[in-house]
Amino acid sequence: MSVRAGIVVTGTEVLTGRVADRNGPWCSEQLRALGVDHESTVVVGDRPNDILAALNWLAAEGCALIITSGGLGPTADDLTATVVGEFQDRLMVVDEPLHLRITAILERLTARWPSVDQAAIAAGNLKQATIPEGATILEPIGTAPGLVVPPPAGRDGPTVVVLPGPPSELVPMWEAAASSAPFIAATEGRVAIEQAMLRLFGIPESEIAATLRAAQTAGLAIDQLEITTCLRRGEIEIVTRYAPDQRPLYDEFARFVAENHSETLFSVDGTTIDQQLAALLLGPPLKTIAVAESCTGGLVAARLTEIAGASDYVRGGVTVYSNAAKSKLAGVPAALIERHGAVSEEVAVALAEGARTVLGAEIGVGVTGVAGPGGGTKEKPVGLVWCAVSLADGDLAVRRLQLPGSRQLIRDRTTTVALHMTARLLRERLR
Amino acid sequence: MSVRAGIVVTGTEVLTGRVADRNGPWCSEQLRALGVDHESTVVVGDRPNDILAALNWLAAEGCALIITSGGLGPTADDLTATVVGEFQDRLMVVDEPLHLRITAILERLTARWPSVDQAAIAAGNLKQATIPEGATILEPIGTAPGLVVPPPAGRDGPTVVVLPGPPSELVPMWEAAASSAPFIAATEGRVAIEQAMLRLFGIPESEIAATLRAAQTAGLAIDQLEITTCLRRGEIEIVTRYAPDQRPLYDEFARFVAENHSETLFSVDGTTIDQQLAALLLGPPLKTIAVAESCTGGLVAARLTEIAGASDYVRGGVTVYSNAAKSKLAGVPAALIERHGAVSEEVAVALAEGARTVLGAEIGVGVTGVAGPGGGTKEKPVGLVWCAVSLADGDLAVRRLQLPGSRQLIRDRTTTVALHMTARLLRERLR
Repeated sequence: MSVRAGIVVTGTEVLTGRVADRNGPWCSEQLRALGVDHESTVVVGDRPNDILAALNWLAAEGCALIITSGGLGPTADDLTATVVGEFQDRLMVVDEPLHLRITAILERLTARWPSVDQAAIAAGNLKQATIPEGATILEPIGTAPGLVVPPPAGRDGPTVVVLPGPPSELVPMWEAAASSAPFIAATEGRVAIEQAMLRLFGIPESEIAATLRAAQTAGLAIDQLEITTCLRRGEIEIVTRYAPDQRPLYDEFARFVAENHSETLFSVDGTTIDQQLAALLLGPPLKTIAVAESCTGGLVAARLTEIAGASDYVRGGVTVYSNAAKSKLAGVPAALIERHGAVSEEVAVALAEGARTVLGAEIGVGVTGVAGPGGGTKEKPVGLVWCAVSLADGDLAVRRLQLPGSRQLIRDRTTTVALHMTARLLRERLR
Repeated sequence: MSVRAGIVVTGTEVLTGRVADRNGPWCSEQLRALGVDHESTVVVGDRPNDILAALNWLAAEGCALIITSGGLGPTADDLTATVVGEFQDRLMVVDEPLHLRITAILERLTARWPSVDQAAIAAGNLKQATIPEGATILEPIGTAPGLVVPPPAGRDGPTVVVLPGPPSELVPMWEAAASSAPFIAATEGRVAIEQAMLRLFGIPESEIAATLRAAQTAGLAIDQLEITTCLRRGEIEIVTRYAPDQRPLYDEFARFVAENHSETLFSVDGTTIDQQLAALLLGPPLKTIAVAESCTGGLVAARLTEIAGASDYVRGGVTVYSNAAKSKLAGVPAALIERHGAVSEEVAVALAEGARTVLGAEIGVGVTGVAGPGGGTKEKPVGLVWCAVSLADGDLAVRRLQLPGSRQLIRDRTTTVALHMTARLLRERLR
């Protein structure tokens, strides 16, 4: 990959973390797919000097393309277009046809705010229609146009693609940016690069490091592949990037990992456990599922229903925090809770069976635990969780977990485990 | 603020977005609280040259302090310590006492993995104990030590603070880093800076821009304050940073915003709607709450229970995707669904009342809508949502929403609206 690119994410709210950046990673993935080598992302606040410094650095680093996100709003602290104009030595001019098109968009949008300040709207409108001379306009998705701004004639340097901050505007604008003439000219000579991902669950990261060394010992030239491993939500991801002609080598490497970790490797095609479980449930035959959760407080149901079409197989769920709710909504006998405590194997199983029975599903998932930070005891410390999955014909899987970390981490990790347990139980039956 | 700092976040998994970075924003906030001017965050992959280039740039930009996160793991692709050693012209040496301390940690950790590869563990151990000569060691939280690495004697340049990637290790290590002698020396002359936040709900961003202009017209010298506004999850945040002696000016500005937006300003102290609702529920008197949700599929319950201590007031929730579940678990009459459809004002109200009754709570929240991408009709398009909040004494609030965006955005925004509606209803009763 000989064409290099950088990304500049602007916005004090992103720099300080009030808003998590999704644009840098998303654009990175698009660049990779196009065969452009994305070297780094610089996050800066709304200070023009800092934005300019980032552009100058990436230019000095040899980037042929720079993507910016953010700073195109109607307010005075949104300055990206002006800074990019300065960087490319281009005058800022009002584009009249664009001005009229934004006016039309604004008339439609402000219809729902009857008391809106028209002077404020007009000022923002004019600002958003003021662009570096000679820039290619990317039509607004919201009210801000994107821009593709090449260096001035006769000067070398990066072409800058200026995109809006909201992902819901940036994403639909990408296609127009990538197919614009200055973008194509700047990325001439790019070479597509392949990327593949293996996902494992229930294995420490050091085992993967050992497998990589073993692969080399076995004679696989894996230094020809760009392999990175990372631990994420309790799963390990092995991501490999390689030139298209290294595909046979990658296939051999993937086989090597599969042979050494057949029990824990669950995804070889990039699919997540969420997607895999959805596919398993959709059948055939279609299997319905229901959840009764205590410490995860709705997260298991929320993650199951995150996938479009989940209404076909998710019967529903109950969040049963109190003991009374456990009995009333999930049919857990009060005496059972009395005898074993709300956080116990018996109650997890009763929740799973109760979810199934009460909601009329074929699969029931039950979760109970101590998410903390309070509520732990010596016998049942914070992080103790019981998960159960129950099938209509009596098949049952139960796990006890002792999880480290914060309330949020414990709830999140428990949710992941519940999905894996359910998928594993279904897979074992399909074999 | 005269002392400048930069942050370098390393890791291909972060650059490409498989893992969302939380360290950059978190460290940014710590630096601000210390009075250090955080200029930019550079995100780079696991390539040593790219890490080095980022360090060199931030040094050239005049940073007296650089924080790095990530790249301290036991695997060979974790290279940050070595690169920082090179950057500071320091030899890499094995610190024997550290080596022994990591060994002890590993013995404890690997006890739960009986079949673990001991040679792999030993190699990773030695790597993690190899540090730039003269660095201050920050004791490992996991197995990786942090490092504070000053420039070599007699040379100017930034001190580099090397921290591990997992937030659960980085956060507890910060205190030791910030109180280390080289950190204090590098940040001499810093000036603490105040930050305050206003949050508004139910108002377009352009109205805030107009208010800022009106404040200037009214004679407030708000250019002395660093004000940024941003739209987040349907709420608008106005964040202001100012030198301590500008506090009276900020107070005047905050009063100006409050006077102009009394209906929509809900937070002047940085609290979130989640925290405010929790405080309202905790009373006195304590008020219990229950949820019956369809399109949000558990998200409202999950967000309510995210707050520690939620078990004191959250009775529970039901996720009722199917019509049968709506009737069985939330007591919505089948005839009502038949007559008005599952997505209707009547069913939202019945869900809210049902949640309250079935779970024995004083407050019931009901949500039903079309999250998409499928399932929309001309009469009930994707994004149509009904929310209802019902109190035991008959008080009721209902809202119809037509939300734009993806399934995820619609579910998320609906959850925010449900929390705001509930808090508003409780506040109105308290007045």
